[in-house]
Amino acid sequence: MTSDPAPIRALHPAAEPFEFMLGTWAGSGEGSYPTIDSFAYVEEVTFGHVGKPFFAYSQKTRHAETGAPLHAESGFWRFLADDSAADGGVGVELVMAHPTGVVELLAGAFIADEAGGTFELSCPNVVTTASAVLVERTTRQFRFDGDTLSYDVAMAAVGQPLTHHLSATLTRRC
Amino acid sequence: MTSDPAPIRALHPAAEPFEFMLGTWAGSGEGSYPTIDSFAYVEEVTFGHVGKPFFAYSQKTRHAETGAPLHAESGFWRFLADDSAADGGVGVELVMAHPTGVVELLAGAFIADEAGGTFELSCPNVVTTASAVLVERTTRQFRFDGDTLSYDVAMAAVGQPLTHHLSATLTRRC
Repeated sequence: MTSDPAPIRALHPAAEPFEFMLGTWAGSGEGSYPTIDSFAYVEEVTFGHVGKPFFAYSQKTRHAETGAPLHAESGFWRFLADDSAADGGVGVELVMAHPTGVVELLAGAFIADEAGGTFELSCPNVVTTASAVLVERTTRQFRFDGDTLSYDVAMAAVGQPLTHHLSATLTRRC
Repeated sequence: MTSDPAPIRALHPAAEPFEFMLGTWAGSGEGSYPTIDSFAYVEEVTFGHVGKPFFAYSQKTRHAETGAPLHAESGFWRFLADDSAADGGVGVELVMAHPTGVVELLAGAFIADEAGGTFELSCPNVVTTASAVLVERTTRQFRFDGDTLSYDVAMAAVGQPLTHHLSATLTRRC
């Protein structure tokens, strides 16, 4: 029965180095872009797994004051072989869809450090539906340091060059 | 706080005609393709909303006998203006990501009938990551008839022409 609780499965070997990501993270962030007013938001992010070499990812943000829903995105983090990144990090792909009609296929690497590590990802060719606002290119940096996750997102969109858009700091909740 | 339960929000006017989709659906399906053995699966699908003109979508399948996780996909259904489809249906876009490194941007229309209606969607240019198996094109048909949801998926992949791949029938659970 699909409605039964899923059994607890062992992590796939390719995902084991990233066990620290699993669970729910929450916190707050700020957004800006040359074409809009800056804004503050609260956010919740979850990473889950089913024993395969990827994590399911979902994210929701709400307006920091009104609680109104703002953004959401969902997709999957794919962990490649250890030697898959040219610079010695672990190769990673992140595919996700946005309700704005935008999909990102990010690729890059995870570089471990003493505190945790950083994912450096970029999407040189964002793909959008016919009705979506034009987004051309994004970069995303996710830093994990114990129970803290912080990230930065930059994008080239609506005719602007690659420009800082979002930054947030989340803490582990469960 | 992002961890508070989200308040119940009114449906966006563009999403109102599709209220029948909301909730969780479960059932079973069968998959086949010229390059693989046929297989049976159980599936759970959820549609949710936050008061905007889209529904969040997530899907998971498991092996019908062993319960082992098979596929998953997540993304968003975007409801366009009433007159957005050339044939008089309601224009719809469906963007989703797969853990296989595949993203689909499907477009098409919802055609209402006495029993419910059918979404006829196609993705002429599937996009994949560098490490993904090649998928070129997909079509998806979703039929809603009261508490029953059935669908068919065809794809052109790994050098095969557009070929039937999946069909399933689900019933409303909540």
